[in-house]
Amino acid sequence: MRVSLALKKSWRLFNHGPVALVSASAEGVDNVMAAAWVTPLDFDPPKLTVVLAADTYTRALAERSGELVLQVPTVSMLSVIEGVGACSGRDVDKWSKFSIEREREDGVAAPLVKGCVGWLAAKIIAEPRLASEYDLFICQGFAAWADDRVFSDGRLRDDVPPELRAVHHVAGGTYVVDGAIVHASRG
Amino acid sequence: MRVSLALKKSWRLFNHGPVALVSASAEGVDNVMAAAWVTPLDFDPPKLTVVLAADTYTRALAERSGELVLQVPTVSMLSVIEGVGACSGRDVDKWSKFSIEREREDGVAAPLVKGCVGWLAAKIIAEPRLASEYDLFICQGFAAWADDRVFSDGRLRDDVPPELRAVHHVAGGTYVVDGAIVHASRG
Repeated sequence: MRVSLALKKSWRLFNHGPVALVSASAEGVDNVMAAAWVTPLDFDPPKLTVVLAADTYTRALAERSGELVLQVPTVSMLSVIEGVGACSGRDVDKWSKFSIEREREDGVAAPLVKGCVGWLAAKIIAEPRLASEYDLFICQGFAAWADDRVFSDGRLRDDVPPELRAVHHVAGGTYVVDGAIVHASRG
Repeated sequence: MRVSLALKKSWRLFNHGPVALVSASAEGVDNVMAAAWVTPLDFDPPKLTVVLAADTYTRALAERSGELVLQVPTVSMLSVIEGVGACSGRDVDKWSKFSIEREREDGVAAPLVKGCVGWLAAKIIAEPRLASEYDLFICQGFAAWADDRVFSDGRLRDDVPPELRAVHHVAGGTYVVDGAIVHASRG
């Protein structure tokens, strides 16, 4: 079940480097893309860096609305992750093409992709030179949610069901699935 | 065995979001720290973003020399990863304290940490406002190596031995170890 996640713990959704789905909405049009390069930049308030290629429609919508939702898909969603990365929302309606369901939250411009296990709604911090020179965006989270089968009390659980594990893109359609959780002893 | 990795494929060392060790050297002093927030930014030539907290000695050395080495440690090195992140090279010699061996390459200022499975030597691109405002550094790789038991022909192998797998930091000493490799069908 999707439940609220304390904002100050929301950087944990992305700290281990999973592939993200990025959704954005402007003027009544929603779109979603895959992004491997989503990384925390600060804890509280949470900031993240996101790389969005210049020609993507999701980037255009995010720039127009100033907002996006970053979310963590699961290994069960591999065909969606690949699918939304292989076509443009300028050409097709990805939501119907890949049977992706979305939900709305008050005060959040972009839709939340169902089936994901963590969501962070964020506003883009204006850094136009970074966007034009590096395709790099800095954003600040303002609301977060997590599936309580994966995160509880703001922590990644030790007993995440195999089908809900995150994936990390290696290259060219090859992904590493989250394996065992290990705890280092801190002395 | 450590072998050269084609520079244009070197972004793959970090694409799946593993924890990195960052080494730097200036004026005859070497240091090393752990960094969870190391992410590709571009493919060829490879650029990466790296977050280095303001008070770290490794950052000071990297800023002085304009260079650093980003490397991928393994699950076998968990105590080193934790150890170098829990003290400062200003106070202790981390190399001896944690029995870390290092190697040198011609033309590379920083040492390469032995036991890691991927290494990228990089030069810092001067972005002083990003450093002061966000602790964010952009660097460009100029030489790369990989352990051929983990990467061969520029690809992450399907048969990486368990003890050589990368780890991803979740929070507070909890890590996710690389699990299964999956290949999405394309097209």
